[in-house]
Amino acid sequence: MKVAIIFGSKSDTEMMKGAAEILRQFNIEHSAYVLSAHRVPEKLVETIKNLEDKGCECIIAAAGLAAHLPGVIASHTVLPVIGVPINAAISGIDSLLSIVQMPKSIPVATVGINNSYNAGMLAVQILSLKYPEIKEKLKDFRATMKEKFIKENEEGVEL
Amino acid sequence: MKVAIIFGSKSDTEMMKGAAEILRQFNIEHSAYVLSAHRVPEKLVETIKNLEDKGCECIIAAAGLAAHLPGVIASHTVLPVIGVPINAAISGIDSLLSIVQMPKSIPVATVGINNSYNAGMLAVQILSLKYPEIKEKLKDFRATMKEKFIKENEEGVEL
Amino acid sequence: MKVAIIFGSKSDTEMMKGAAEILRQFNIEHSAYVLSAHRVPEKLVETIKNLEDKGCECIIAAAGLAAHLPGVIASHTVLPVIGVPINAAISGIDSLLSIVQMPKSIPVATVGINNSYNAGMLAVQILSLKYPEIKEKLKDFRATMKEKFIKENEEGVEL
Amino acid sequence: MKVAIIFGSKSDTEMMKGAAEILRQFNIEHSAYVLSAHRVPEKLVETIKNLEDKGCECIIAAAGLAAHLPGVIASHTVLPVIGVPINAAISGIDSLLSIVQMPKSIPVATVGINNSYNAGMLAVQILSLKYPEIKEKLKDFRATMKEKFIKENEEGVEL
Amino acid sequence: MKVAIIFGSKSDTEMMKGAAEILRQFNIEHSAYVLSAHRVPEKLVETIKNLEDKGCECIIAAAGLAAHLPGVIASHTVLPVIGVPINAAISGIDSLLSIVQMPKSIPVATVGINNSYNAGMLAVQILSLKYPEIKEKLKDFRATMKEKFIKENEEGVEL
Amino acid sequence: MKVAIIFGSKSDTEMMKGAAEILRQFNIEHSAYVLSAHRVPEKLVETIKNLEDKGCECIIAAAGLAAHLPGVIASHTVLPVIGVPINAAISGIDSLLSIVQMPKSIPVATVGINNSYNAGMLAVQILSLKYPEIKEKLKDFRATMKEKFIKENEEGVEL
Amino acid sequence: MKVAIIFGSKSDTEMMKGAAEILRQFNIEHSAYVLSAHRVPEKLVETIKNLEDKGCECIIAAAGLAAHLPGVIASHTVLPVIGVPINAAISGIDSLLSIVQMPKSIPVATVGINNSYNAGMLAVQILSLKYPEIKEKLKDFRATMKEKFIKENEEGVEL
Amino acid sequence: MKVAIIFGSKSDTEMMKGAAEILRQFNIEHSAYVLSAHRVPEKLVETIKNLEDKGCECIIAAAGLAAHLPGVIASHTVLPVIGVPINAAISGIDSLLSIVQMPKSIPVATVGINNSYNAGMLAVQILSLKYPEIKEKLKDFRATMKEKFIKENEEGVEL
Repeated sequence: MKVAIIFGSKSDTEMMKGAAEILRQFNIEHSAYVLSAHRVPEKLVETIKNLEDKGCECIIAAAGLAAHLPGVIASHTVLPVIGVPINAAISGIDSLLSIVQMPKSIPVATVGINNSYNAGMLAVQILSLKYPEIKEKLKDFRATMKEKFIKENEEGVEL
Repeated sequence: MKVAIIFGSKSDTEMMKGAAEILRQFNIEHSAYVLSAHRVPEKLVETIKNLEDKGCECIIAAAGLAAHLPGVIASHTVLPVIGVPINAAISGIDSLLSIVQMPKSIPVATVGINNSYNAGMLAVQILSLKYPEIKEKLKDFRATMKEKFIKENEEGVEL
Repeated sequence: MKVAIIFGSKSDTEMMKGAAEILRQFNIEHSAYVLSAHRVPEKLVETIKNLEDKGCECIIAAAGLAAHLPGVIASHTVLPVIGVPINAAISGIDSLLSIVQMPKSIPVATVGINNSYNAGMLAVQILSLKYPEIKEKLKDFRATMKEKFIKENEEGVEL
Repeated sequence: MKVAIIFGSKSDTEMMKGAAEILRQFNIEHSAYVLSAHRVPEKLVETIKNLEDKGCECIIAAAGLAAHLPGVIASHTVLPVIGVPINAAISGIDSLLSIVQMPKSIPVATVGINNSYNAGMLAVQILSLKYPEIKEKLKDFRATMKEKFIKENEEGVEL
Repeated sequence: MKVAIIFGSKSDTEMMKGAAEILRQFNIEHSAYVLSAHRVPEKLVETIKNLEDKGCECIIAAAGLAAHLPGVIASHTVLPVIGVPINAAISGIDSLLSIVQMPKSIPVATVGINNSYNAGMLAVQILSLKYPEIKEKLKDFRATMKEKFIKENEEGVEL
Repeated sequence: MKVAIIFGSKSDTEMMKGAAEILRQFNIEHSAYVLSAHRVPEKLVETIKNLEDKGCECIIAAAGLAAHLPGVIASHTVLPVIGVPINAAISGIDSLLSIVQMPKSIPVATVGINNSYNAGMLAVQILSLKYPEIKEKLKDFRATMKEKFIKENEEGVEL
Repeated sequence: MKVAIIFGSKSDTEMMKGAAEILRQFNIEHSAYVLSAHRVPEKLVETIKNLEDKGCECIIAAAGLAAHLPGVIASHTVLPVIGVPINAAISGIDSLLSIVQMPKSIPVATVGINNSYNAGMLAVQILSLKYPEIKEKLKDFRATMKEKFIKENEEGVEL
Repeated sequence: MKVAIIFGSKSDTEMMKGAAEILRQFNIEHSAYVLSAHRVPEKLVETIKNLEDKGCECIIAAAGLAAHLPGVIASHTVLPVIGVPINAAISGIDSLLSIVQMPKSIPVATVGINNSYNAGMLAVQILSLKYPEIKEKLKDFRATMKEKFIKENEEGVEL
């Protein structure tokens, strides 16, 4: 397992599918965990330690409101942690700020509000540095995306 | 020791004096700790456990930016945790939201931005429920405050 | 009666049930009052005085918009006042700031927007300092919550 | 005395001079009071009652942070209350929202952040409805202001 | 006619009924106009001049987005202008700031977002200074409101 | 004279020099006017009419706070109006929203906060459609800017 | 073709119709393109170069979120670029700021959030400088708009 | 060279030293470039292509205002791009949103406002996946940081 996807509540499952979708497309092994920084802090720390032992190389963490989950995970590992702010109130601005404004030394790689797809994509890009086959696929993916975009829109659009 | 005051950096010492000032006025024993949720998470948990053993009854925690400290403390204790948002960026709004928007079950009693004095006062009010002598003093304090305010301003002010 | 729950309009009844739910779980006597700082200020002051006489030890106050209710209550009592910002406009940010940014000396223990459940929980934590049986229950509650959370999520989740 | 100017702290004296300046220009009697909605609530209510007896017709109230003063005054009188948000934190947005977002039935006539001059001017405009001599002066004032503005700027400006 | 209610689009009619409702309750003559500061600026100026001739004493103006209407009206009259910010985008914050942040000398008496009822109430309070019968009614109204509020809520509420 | 630069107060002169600087570089005739939408509304309208007669083709208007100036100008002319939000409070967000959020039919071409240089540049770009010599210069200007930027930074920078 | 309308996704087609509607009314040739600054950057640059060759004189560009499209287009052309912020999250404030806050030298003429109609109108105003027949039509259009507005609202409105 | 640090203006040099400081500590080769997405877009694309050829594995990009630089870079490479929002206006919120809210498929790994140190640290964490010696150092670094923090603060602090 290379990527762990951790979020605080089963109710966020639908929103997190974007991350898994892109990882599946790149055949990158991943597992999802529902864990809370505030309700089960010891279990969270224990899980993070296990993840490193299992060979996990990157962690995606998503949370809403006072979103401490990604930052707390980052404080317990040296693996890169990707944070996804979830919009649970005030358009997700609380969550964005709680994730991105980390203090010196413990960064969280933050992506856009509710944008779990981009978290998955960023994990792919990070892993591609080490795994040449992912790098190859990534270049193809990008090229295909371009072609597809151009094709879909080449007839223009009627306003 | 009844109240612990925890904050993330020595540079916040000046700002936190308000909390100690009011606790001293009520002769409430307190200690201050510089601890970080992100840099020394294990030490933080260990300290919280010790605090409970030492008879601590209320924790004041202050932090800026993605201010996880109060919430992380709250997840490791059932003592009431009072959170002070510190203005380290964007007027302290990041810190306020990171502290107050806690998820269901793990509240932080949040006071105003940079207002450590009010955190101390809230601790006094909370302790006054259990300790009748603090309650008495608190009523006197409030009455004195009123008298002083009225006296200082009774001549009016010239605009 | 140990906890009073005060809010400004019957239309907020549904939103305030979270506070009562958790107090009931801890068998803490509580009463709810619909009172407005602006429409019936004298009645509000009278009620607060009565509450203290009845042995009330903690007040939960909720309001939306220019939410003065918690702060006004706090100015008439030395009991700890817990403020719940209600989202009635601009995502509840007006209410949050009107409650949390209290001036020096008169704090309101603010919880998250619309999060009356956490207000109830904070009241429990505050009362637990004085009442050992509540403290015991609170520790059990927290342990049970952890177990339940872990159990519910131990099979993981499919993305 | 026709206009009362009330604010919460002597430290705001300088900022409030704009209101007095314009009232003096119109020879409108006014008095200034330092009073706090939270620290001396009973004194505030007592003062408001006295103001009505003294013939006061309009109240200007200024406050910062969780600025309850104007709204609390408005709840105790049917006189028009003009609110001045003071910038004491987060650019005064907390104060603006705490003053302007009053619930149904108890309005506060809010002017711009730190703009006590406009509060004075609005008081003049309100009183001019009843006092023809103020109305006359007001029209002259506006005409003079226009002439002065045009004269000062008629030579244009070099960029 | 004592009060003019001006707003920029027929689509705001429903929202503005609150202002008329309270004026009707006080038997204060009023008329409503749909006028735009940007689309028909000359017609707006002409209408304002007419209003003064017709004996209008107070103007309520409502607008959304870059809400210039109240400020532009205020620049053409010395009558008090009450501004109602309408939520047409970003929760009405654009409109609130466009109305309340008027420069020195030309104030707009701003009420809460979408709160046309309070604009009507403020007009009543302003007119009550000159018209003793309105003042009497206003005191009764406030007393009745209090009684009604207390009566409606005296049985308390079940959470 | 091809471009008029209008702003509300001599105190903004320094800030507006950027607009004149770039117009001078393109030898585009321009004049500056200090005029206020609220203090001298009739003079403003009169000036706008004169500007059209004098052959003015584009208007740059700058204002702070509830910045109505650009929108009011736009309502009195069909010339393109470029709006510059000035930071006079809350970081200029009030001004930005008051300028950019214009209602349907009367646009203002808004540039960044305090960015009068870009207002001048946008005027140049607009005029370049009609005047081929400006278009030529503009292309040279852009090319020179690129070269200069690259040259200045080609040695890299030491961190 | 005089005006190009470029936006990042077919899903914005409905929102962009306002721009085309007003251009059609003025018989101004225009074409719409779905292009993304991030997904097909080379295709975007190529298209911009083609547009200039085809005689395009003004570009309308719309985007949501981190809306780079208008600014990226502006960096590749000296034609005036009109930016339309699309509300795809947090009320469109992210998009507004990403478009309007352009650095020195490369302005984007920004209109209101989701207000593609005003982008079209601004293009008409810009083109009217060069094309006298558009200028004539524009004056008629404005006059007709005024008449229509006055006619539609002359009976007043019942509140 | 493993990491490229790109920012838009020499004036940001001081602010960007944090990134280089941490990379130097890990002996990670890096180079800094002053490049602008808007002023020299072709040079930027050319440089990005060169970077890949030179073996660059991670790009740190910093910008203020409408901060397009990190997103534009991300659209031209599959390397992970780390974005640093610079506070050049409105507390850096414009820059933060312009960087983090990237559309689907092209993520930018965003760190806190002005926090170039964390960008450097995130680059280290990303590279540590591939380079075991960096991983070792990183673990030591974290351990040393903890020890140092604890040591510096073990005597507690006097309030």
